[in-house]
Amino acid sequence: MSAIKLGIVGCGIAVKELHYPALMELQDLFKIEGVTSRTEESADACAKLFKTRSYAYDNLLDRVDAVDIAVPTHLNYEMIKKALDARVNVICEKPIAENVDTGKKIVELANSSEAMLYIAENYRHSAVYAKAKEIMKRIGKPEFVLYSRFQHMEKDVKYAATEWRKNPKHIGGFLSDGGVHDIAALRMVMGNIIRVKAFVSRARDYLGSCDTMSASLLFADGALGTYSVSYGLAGENIFCISGTEGFMKIRSDRRAIEVITEKEGKELGVEEESIEEENTYKKEFIDFYEVVNGKENSLGSPAEALEDLRVIEEAIKSSEL
Amino acid sequence: MSAIKLGIVGCGIAVKELHYPALMELQDLFKIEGVTSRTEESADACAKLFKTRSYAYDNLLDRVDAVDIAVPTHLNYEMIKKALDARVNVICEKPIAENVDTGKKIVELANSSEAMLYIAENYRHSAVYAKAKEIMKRIGKPEFVLYSRFQHMEKDVKYAATEWRKNPKHIGGFLSDGGVHDIAALRMVMGNIIRVKAFVSRARDYLGSCDTMSASLLFADGALGTYSVSYGLAGENIFCISGTEGFMKIRSDRRAIEVITEKEGKELGVEEESIEEENTYKKEFIDFYEVVNGKENSLGSPAEALEDLRVIEEAIKSSEL
Repeated sequence: MSAIKLGIVGCGIAVKELHYPALMELQDLFKIEGVTSRTEESADACAKLFKTRSYAYDNLLDRVDAVDIAVPTHLNYEMIKKALDARVNVICEKPIAENVDTGKKIVELANSSEAMLYIAENYRHSAVYAKAKEIMKRIGKPEFVLYSRFQHMEKDVKYAATEWRKNPKHIGGFLSDGGVHDIAALRMVMGNIIRVKAFVSRARDYLGSCDTMSASLLFADGALGTYSVSYGLAGENIFCISGTEGFMKIRSDRRAIEVITEKEGKELGVEEESIEEENTYKKEFIDFYEVVNGKENSLGSPAEALEDLRVIEEAIKSSEL
Repeated sequence: MSAIKLGIVGCGIAVKELHYPALMELQDLFKIEGVTSRTEESADACAKLFKTRSYAYDNLLDRVDAVDIAVPTHLNYEMIKKALDARVNVICEKPIAENVDTGKKIVELANSSEAMLYIAENYRHSAVYAKAKEIMKRIGKPEFVLYSRFQHMEKDVKYAATEWRKNPKHIGGFLSDGGVHDIAALRMVMGNIIRVKAFVSRARDYLGSCDTMSASLLFADGALGTYSVSYGLAGENIFCISGTEGFMKIRSDRRAIEVITEKEGKELGVEEESIEEENTYKKEFIDFYEVVNGKENSLGSPAEALEDLRVIEEAIKSSEL
């Protein structure tokens, strides 16, 4: 298999800090053909970073096999459509879209296109969740998951300072931008979420939207869960799954899982499983390469990415009920 | 002030294991005049324990200033009514009633009675929650509370084996029986809960009712929370409050509070406050003694106990929506 000729679309934090280092390690798989960005300044900086040239998007599409789209979320539809219409394969940063309605249109585009659309959700490539799924049988039938993410972002934190995040056109601001990661992780380990009820609030005025949510989850297999999240507050980060024969705690740095097994209420023991976590961005690009070359698209499936977003959108909308 | 002549009503786990040791230390305040129980066997055992006699309830009421009612929850109304009608003061174990409708009737009885009704919610006497409330200002405006209780009860655990708990006539079984404690604690620290949305499930068939709940909470001042609880599963026990200037964690043994303060996203430090926790059952009897002698009834207020139950009932009912 030969290297994919890749164009870079957008030059924000994701491209510079997450994709660039990964792609530099994957030069056998991807040859960077050029970049495009909304402003000349950004395009020039990006071209310089990748040691290539910048192009207008249409011209870039003429030159490549695939594009890596990492633009403000509400621009995904337009950028994906142009690429797929030009039969250019796409790897696009999560969330799939600014809301479920647009997300559905993107899934339809992908379904009717000859080119491939891959949504990059790096949590799907994280070894810890695959390991948690594997460990699950040791704690019996999973019945409850306690999940919390407290990621206090100050005004000057790079993500909080991004213009399109300060005035978000994507539903719930950080609640969807970051939240799809959490839902992806929860769904990987616990399966589909069929209902969600939530309240949302805003702890910080500089975050541009609601930034805090408390949600109750109902999973397809009958398990329950709570999902507590804030981008404006510090707090305890938990991922703990209780089953009929014990429980497991995924350490918040994703480097270990503690398994506490029990039988008839007596603790049988505590074991810790260490996780070798690789660069998940690198893994998603490798997977994209394989998908373009014929592998089934499971981890980058647009339908799965849409489902992550659907749960968040249902949660946010439920807060108004 | 002289000792209160007290009658013991019921002779279950609460009386034998919680009230008896407390009352033995308070013989200056309470003189045990007699006991009553539904079966002769239980009445005899209780009389022997307290070194007194057993009586029919009506006869007991004639002999005492106050009764300590600790019967299956659905019998509270009948037992409280008889006592108040006889102008006998009452201290009654939480929950106030088997459901909110009956609880309201009990509050009305209490409001129109010359005798005093005191609902014994020992969490209201726990030093750790008063301390948490005091510490609150150090973490700024409270915005989120993460609360979980996993208390896996096996089939042979005494509470699970109680007949009236195996076939509960009180709403939600353990979810209300134990749940009012959690709501009391949450309300003490965070204030009133104005809305709750939840899912409930049953992890163990031997627990007689639903035993697991995931709830989202909205507090009167706008703070949010999640309440995760199971009596059938083991898991992580958390009580963590996030504010605009840090967060605090109440240790699950209630013996310490960890305070993590921050300013503009930078951690300023971690301090641990140790808590001297006294016997909360003893404290509630002392408080009851003072209330009978004219002190305002705040910690044993029937209206407060009803509010704890109302939150749980609203949560359980919301699960059907």
